[in-house]
Amino acid sequence: RDDISRLLQELPSDDAALLVAEMPGELREELLDTMKIEHSTDVQELLGFADETAGRIMTPDYFALEEEVTVSEAITALQRRSEEFEMAFYLYVVDTRNHLLGVVSLRQLLLNSPSTPLRKIMISDVIKVTTDTDQEEVARIVATYNLLAVPVVDQENKLAGIITVDDIIDVMREEATEDIYALAGVEADDRAMGSSFNSVRRRLPWLLLSLGAALIAVAILQYYREIIRQEIWLAVLIPVVAAMGSNAATQTMTVVVRGIGLGEVSVDTGRRVVLKESLVGLINGAVVGLVTFLIISAWFGWKLAVVLGLTMVLSLLIAGMFGALIPVALKRFRVDPALASSVFVVTMTDVITFFLYLIIATLVLRYKPF
Amino acid sequence: RDDISRLLQELPSDDAALLVAEMPGELREELLDTMKIEHSTDVQELLGFADETAGRIMTPDYFALEEEVTVSEAITALQRRSEEFEMAFYLYVVDTRNHLLGVVSLRQLLLNSPSTPLRKIMISDVIKVTTDTDQEEVARIVATYNLLAVPVVDQENKLAGIITVDDIIDVMREEATEDIYALAGVEADDRAMGSSFNSVRRRLPWLLLSLGAALIAVAILQYYREIIRQEIWLAVLIPVVAAMGSNAATQTMTVVVRGIGLGEVSVDTGRRVVLKESLVGLINGAVVGLVTFLIISAWFGWKLAVVLGLTMVLSLLIAGMFGALIPVALKRFRVDPALASSVFVVTMTDVITFFLYLIIATLVLRYKPF
Repeated sequence: RDDISRLLQELPSDDAALLVAEMPGELREELLDTMKIEHSTDVQELLGFADETAGRIMTPDYFALEEEVTVSEAITALQRRSEEFEMAFYLYVVDTRNHLLGVVSLRQLLLNSPSTPLRKIMISDVIKVTTDTDQEEVARIVATYNLLAVPVVDQENKLAGIITVDDIIDVMREEATEDIYALAGVEADDRAMGSSFNSVRRRLPWLLLSLGAALIAVAILQYYREIIRQEIWLAVLIPVVAAMGSNAATQTMTVVVRGIGLGEVSVDTGRRVVLKESLVGLINGAVVGLVTFLIISAWFGWKLAVVLGLTMVLSLLIAGMFGALIPVALKRFRVDPALASSVFVVTMTDVITFFLYLIIATLVLRYKPF
Repeated sequence: RDDISRLLQELPSDDAALLVAEMPGELREELLDTMKIEHSTDVQELLGFADETAGRIMTPDYFALEEEVTVSEAITALQRRSEEFEMAFYLYVVDTRNHLLGVVSLRQLLLNSPSTPLRKIMISDVIKVTTDTDQEEVARIVATYNLLAVPVVDQENKLAGIITVDDIIDVMREEATEDIYALAGVEADDRAMGSSFNSVRRRLPWLLLSLGAALIAVAILQYYREIIRQEIWLAVLIPVVAAMGSNAATQTMTVVVRGIGLGEVSVDTGRRVVLKESLVGLINGAVVGLVTFLIISAWFGWKLAVVLGLTMVLSLLIAGMFGALIPVALKRFRVDPALASSVFVVTMTDVITFFLYLIIATLVLRYKPF
């Protein structure tokens, strides 16, 4: 225990907070007690912020001075306290009550005369985030403005900490993994080199959920069993019906979820995206429907070709519509669009597609030309 | 044209190279001609390197001095040439023939006495990449060592350029998008806010490919049509057969491809990953098979329950095996594992699953208890 505590004190406090957050409650308390008071306070403060917010990933080890300090005094201060800072690229300028006023890059210190006060060389239009900003948003800001670190302020604009670019890179990897996994129905923390038991636990719930979804399609087919009995080729063609709608839905969902993740799609532009993806679905549906019609009419005759061709057009249109609509709607209701979209969209698309297939089949196959 | 040329000269040369690479050949030549000679040479040199390599994304605007230069001379040099550098965080130390000898951070300049030669304060064990290093590998190195910039050397260890962390962030976003898209069968450059026509062009080929894959399953069902005619419930249960194997395969593939992308899975550890994923497939298959058996035996009787339960166990085992084996094998043959895995794995899993389903059905349904 003492070893752990000593190790934690060596770590920068943002990394220590991540480790401590993983520990069981009792051990966590004890560790925070035995740690050097000041450092422990840092970690506890970080733990007070919600998961995946700027407050949780920031380090309070920033380098800040007041505005009347001169360049040469700043350099002396930096030299004296050099050991304290994880990675200091910027010098923040604050007032006596720690409100953030401006920022000076270390390079500016080298480029200005020693007697200049920081006030004169600071940039006062600081790009900053607040402690409750989502970490994904922080990553977008750092990426957009090419920053090495971004200051984190509280509700009163008091400087609370900084987030450095190395931590942003970790956030980006984590968020990208989350998005990739969610679309495939895998929970985060499932690792290729991890334990088998962990992987089973992370994937089984989603497999059982999609078993449930497939059984809905089974119930639909059971309901329409008489038409299948009359026309056995309807059964033989089911793999096409089952595959194409869900594939198109997955494509659309992937592009839209990634667009939301990269900040390209917002709730405001959501309407445009849904319209666009519906159009794409219709065009792809028309082409796939035509190709299917030609192949199936050569293979199984024109009636089945009409049934399957029409089903493809409508199925891909619906896939495009739901594939865009559901992530955008989830985003509006502040649910992580990547997490919940996949099962919803694929199940809805499949269920509607099977219904359409069998309704169209009933209509077309009953039709007797004079 | 002159406007474009003037704009390009304003851009850092790595960004200019990216723009010029996108232009049609003739316009590209003209632009390079009209651009200021020196800058144009930079861009042309960058264009000489293969796509997605360090050479292509580096900027040649590095800040390098020789080892006998003192700290105060270095600061003067930095002040004089400050405008030239996109983002200078490190000072590289080279010999007279530009071989990379060491690195000094700008902070070290502030912390050491003015008369110290760079030789004494430089770190000579420099983390560096070569011009042909893959950009994904460069991103991994920068992320692992928390660097702000990494020097790029040629085959003779001569300094060719640097890659800054802001460009690494762009690379990481690009690579993550590529991986996410590839798993869903969408080509890169498909954007939620882009044109409909572009999205159609990017997705249609993959949809037609999966139509082809579904038609293989149709051919299998056609071959076994007599047993389906005898037992219509076999047709009704096809959605479960079609869904579960491909879902499990997609899960496995996603985790393995992401593991390869993050550098956690290599060709050496590939064998272990394939074994682990096969085990996970077997366990998930056993659970899903049991649940399926119980539901189907209550709904359609024990014979169909045995058929579907057994199919699930084998299908999920195969999904785990191929889902890991194919990306690892593609990696060994230097094919991008994300790009090619998806269609292969899902098609193979589906085809084998349908065969197993109908073979098991033939065996079980023919079996007449005494």
